[in-house]
Parts: sequence; C-alpha cells; structure tokens
Amino acid sequence: MISPLDPAAMAEARAHHDRLTKPRGALGALEDVAVRLAGIAAVSPPPLPEPVALAIFAADHGVHAQGVSPWPQEVTQQMVANFLAGGAVANAFAGQVGASVTVVDVGVNGDLPDAPGLVSRKVRRGTADLSLGPAMTEAEARQAREAGAEVAERLVAQGARCLVTGDMGIANTTASAALICAYTGKEPGEVTGRGTGIDDAMLAHKIAVVTRALEVNRGLDPLAALGGLEHAAIAGYLLKAAELRIPVILDGVIAGAAALAAAAIAPDATGYWIAGHRSAEPGHTAALAHLGLRPLVDLELRLGEGTGGLLAHPLVVAAARVLHEVATFDAAGVTDKEALA
Amino acid sequence: MISPLDPAAMAEARAHHDRLTKPRGALGALEDVAVRLAGIAAVSPPPLPEPVALAIFAADHGVHAQGVSPWPQEVTQQMVANFLAGGAVANAFAGQVGASVTVVDVGVNGDLPDAPGLVSRKVRRGTADLSLGPAMTEAEARQAREAGAEVAERLVAQGARCLVTGDMGIANTTASAALICAYTGKEPGEVTGRGTGIDDAMLAHKIAVVTRALEVNRGLDPLAALGGLEHAAIAGYLLKAAELRIPVILDGVIAGAAALAAAAIAPDATGYWIAGHRSAEPGHTAALAHLGLRPLVDLELRLGEGTGGLLAHPLVVAAARVLHEVATFDAAGVTDKEALA
Repeated sequence: MISPLDPAAMAEARAHHDRLTKPRGALGALEDVAVRLAGIAAVSPPPLPEPVALAIFAADHGVHAQGVSPWPQEVTQQMVANFLAGGAVANAFAGQVGASVTVVDVGVNGDLPDAPGLVSRKVRRGTADLSLGPAMTEAEARQAREAGAEVAERLVAQGARCLVTGDMGIANTTASAALICAYTGKEPGEVTGRGTGIDDAMLAHKIAVVTRALEVNRGLDPLAALGGLEHAAIAGYLLKAAELRIPVILDGVIAGAAALAAAAIAPDATGYWIAGHRSAEPGHTAALAHLGLRPLVDLELRLGEGTGGLLAHPLVVAAARVLHEVATFDAAGVTDKEALA
Repeated sequence: MISPLDPAAMAEARAHHDRLTKPRGALGALEDVAVRLAGIAAVSPPPLPEPVALAIFAADHGVHAQGVSPWPQEVTQQMVANFLAGGAVANAFAGQVGASVTVVDVGVNGDLPDAPGLVSRKVRRGTADLSLGPAMTEAEARQAREAGAEVAERLVAQGARCLVTGDMGIANTTASAALICAYTGKEPGEVTGRGTGIDDAMLAHKIAVVTRALEVNRGLDPLAALGGLEHAAIAGYLLKAAELRIPVILDGVIAGAAALAAAAIAPDATGYWIAGHRSAEPGHTAALAHLGLRPLVDLELRLGEGTGGLLAHPLVVAAARVLHEVATFDAAGVTDKEALA
C-alpha cells in the first residue's frame, strides 16, 4: 500500500523555509527536495536521510549476442567481484558517504561464489534476447521484483533511512532504451545512447535492435518483455521503499527505466524518488522528464553502479539539514524584507 | 608568484583514470576536476582536498542608497552576527563537510563587537556609490586584496587544503553585475539579475544604475571603481591560494565577479579555481563562460555566503578519491575493452 506524500508536512516545510534567515526560495531546487522529504516522512522537519544504503542489482542480457556493447558479457561477473572486493568507483563513493553496499545477483550468467555482501536471488542466467522475443516471462519479472522488494525491506529493517539504486549488467542500456520507448512513446533514435562507449556504426545497429525489440514484443508487458532482471528488481525495490516511506535516490538511465515501470504500476510512488543525477544517455533525460523529476547532479557521468546516486546524497542531506539547523529571522534578530513589505 | 598547473601530474592523472575499472571518461566532468587537482598539487594522485575552510568576506555598498535591494543595509551586520552564532545556511553546510568558518569584516558599515571567528580588517565603512563615481580608491582596493590574501595564507597555515569563497553584502549583486560587464564586455541588461529577489521595476532601475556606473567610471580600474570591498578581498584570497597551490571552490556570482578581476591580474591563477555552482544570476553564467569554468552544482541557488561552494565540496573530494581508491583493470581481473580492441 503506497500512500501519497503528506500534504500537511509539505506545507509546514514550505512555511518553515520562509521563516529562515535567507531570501525566500534562495535555495532553489534544494528547497523542493526538503519539502519532498517532509512529505515522505510525513513530518517537518524531516529526519536526515541517513544512514544510506546502496543495492547494486546485477544481471546479464541475452541481447548482448546482437553486438550492442563492446564489452564481453563476463565483465558483469568480474565487476560483481570488484564490488565485493571494494575496488569499484561505487565503493569509493559509498565509503565517502558512509553507505553500505549490497550486491544482488538477480540474473548473472555464471556461478558466483558466496561472499559477504552478496545476496543470491538469481531468477535465471540472464534474460533471453529481447530483439527475438520476450526477455523474460511475467512470472520471472515478478520474481525479480520480489527480490528487489525483499532487499529494500531488509536494508530498512537494518536501519537505512535512504536507499540508492545501483545496477550492473553489460548491455543494460539497450534494454533501458527499449523500456523508455515503451513507457514514454519516444522513438528508439531519440533515446538510444552510447552506453559505456560505442562508435557510430554500433550505435546505429543498437537503435535497429531496439526498434526490432519493440516490434516483436508489441502488446506484451514492457517490463517483462523488454527489461532486464535488474530493471525488474529495481522496480520492486522502488515500490517497497515507497510503501515503507523511505526516500530513494535514483542513479542513472537504468534506474530511470526501472522507475518508469514502477510508476506505471503505482503512480503515487514517484514522489518517494529523488533523481540523483542526469546521465549522458539521452534516454535518461526522456525518462526523468516523463517522471517529472529534476536531477541534482548533471556532470555527464555514464558509469552506473549507483555512482551518480551516491554523489547526490550529500545534497539531499543538506536539503533536510537546513530545516533543522538554520535560525529563523526572529531568533537571529535579522530583518525580514517580506515582513517589511 | 603563480605557476601554471603541472602538466606532468595532469597527464599522469589522465593516464591513471584510463587504467581504472570503469569505461574511459565515464566519470564525465569529475575526471576533469581530478586532473585539475593533480595539476594544482603537482602530483598524481592529488591529495584529498581536505580539510576545507570557508571565509565569508563581508562589506557594505554605497550603491544601496540607489534603491537596488529590498533589504535594509543593516542586514549585512545582522547576518555577520548570524554567521558568528552559527545560525546561517552557510554554517549548516559547513558543518556537514567539516569546514571551518571565518568571517572577515573588510567594510561593514557599523561597529562589530569582537567575536571568535571574526577577523576585523575593515578598510572603510562600505564603498562609495559606484553610480556617482569610483566605489573606492585603488589603495583601498589593494588593502582589501591584502586582507583576503592574509586570510588565505592563515587558513592554509592552519592546515586547510581546500578553500571556499563566501560573501555577505547587501547590494553586492549590483557591484557584481558592473564588474562582469567591465571584464566580459557584456551589456548591463544581459548580466544584471534579481539578486535576493526584486520585482521588474526594481530590476529595470538596477540595470540603469549599472549602466550609469559603467559610464561614470570609464577608464578607471574596474575592481576599485566598480567592486565591493568583499570583491577585492576575494580576489586577493584567490590569488594567494593559487600562489600556495591550494584549490579554491568558488561560490556564486560575487565570487565569479571577483575571479574575473583576479584573472585579469594573473591569468594562470584561473586553473586553481573550481566553480562550485552556477547561481540563478545571469551574470554568473557570463562570468563562468569567460573564465572557462564549468559549475559542479546547478540548482538555482541564489544565497551567497559560500553555500554553493560548500555543497560542491563532496564532489571535489569524490573526484580526487577515485584516483586513490579505485582498482585498476589489471589488479581487479576485469577485462578492459580498450585492451581488447
């Protein structure tokens, strides 16, 4: 059961902002974040969104066989090992903000040895090739959503008061582009990007693959037919967090595509998600526009893993902190121009 | 003596980035920040830019008499007291990143009682009205620059490895607009903004005041004739930091205007400054473009005090951290697509 944001807490946060020693609205988009956090927590000032937890959902993609990525599929597994060893950029950024890192295998094409920090919820060894037929069945997509929901629930039970989405899956920008087309109505040529770095010829091929995927799966549930197992898991994670009234910072284009799927299931959940950043992928801009979310960081990152979401976390904390720590005009003895008028 | 950034350290930082377990260039603008930090420190990886110190330079403006701000001039002093009591937004954001806060009176129009954290270097009680003649003499501007340089030197001697600019001065966006016109060649109508919040009629008047200021001071040194005492102090602070090879995160439009003045004095110093954010003031965009700096945060803040610079600090730290903590392809056993090609 997902409730809308609490309007009374949001109104109180807005009114409190206007009493603080700063010109009205002077914190721009950060004020909107603070108001949203109040609506999520149903109290103003909202609690600081700490501690924070990152879940990286990892899975492989059958469409890799179409030659849409210059990276071999094994890199998904290799990067999972890198996350577990603490060597990836996501680990460095997580350490800086004090985030725990949980890696969730929902569909890696290989056997991963047990390791601390690894949650094994493999639904299948990678999706089927979405350009030839459905990437997965609806039951498989549901199973991946349940894995994501379970992880969100566990992290919150362990004390997390803010979640960040992360993903790893070679070729997952192809599935993201297909999902974004299906949910926003955009054309493949508008939303398909260079992912982790492809040349013009491979980009043209990737657009053709996305176009074919949309054709062969017309009429089917987009999340199951076009998505990756990590997209489905992130959708479940996002919906469970909204149910638990915990804010989620979205990472990049994979999270954006998953959020479109989750918003189609429960539109009220969108209020619980904060766009951490805007990636270099054109589809991400389309997804954020459709969701009505404004990204906090916009630095042309195109890495995934949760890196853009983690970078935004201090901004989200700062937004909430203002409502706790800043003096009012009255208390500080500062003249309020609005009171003069 | 200000030296250019170290090209060998920058080349090493670039090469190191390309060995790390991420697609090349995947950290976008953060990679450029890391390379710049290496050039500043003349070593790769560069040290983390911590601890960080904020100096808020406060001064009043004779042009306030022209009715360019809805706030009474006393608010400058009142906000200085608020900074010293820890109640302003800058204090909240400084606390979050562990920044010390030093308030420097270079020209407040009033007597400020001694207080811990307040440095008294008052040059005069506010500038003269720049729309009637020079705001200050060249000797006064020099004295304010020296105060800023002294503060930078002291903060670095106390251990700071990153500085942030801050400012407080009712009407200082008017002086900033005039400085930006003088240094970039833009017209007053293009760069004059609403500051902390003015209506259309006051904006039109403010543009006329800036236009008159440029006319009456034609041929004079722009920093002295058009600037505020805080602009001159920030220029000195920026130049001293560059001399000491310490990065400075610029706050908003006041810092941008001061940086234009400092860059005119020592063009090589620009490399030592990182644009923390882009404010809602149109002149700030013009100043950053002229300086060739890309802002890290772009959230329509229009507060000053150093708030935008402080918000950017975690991004700057994260940029440097990548070069320290992230595993290489070789060490992590991850396949590098570039090595495959």
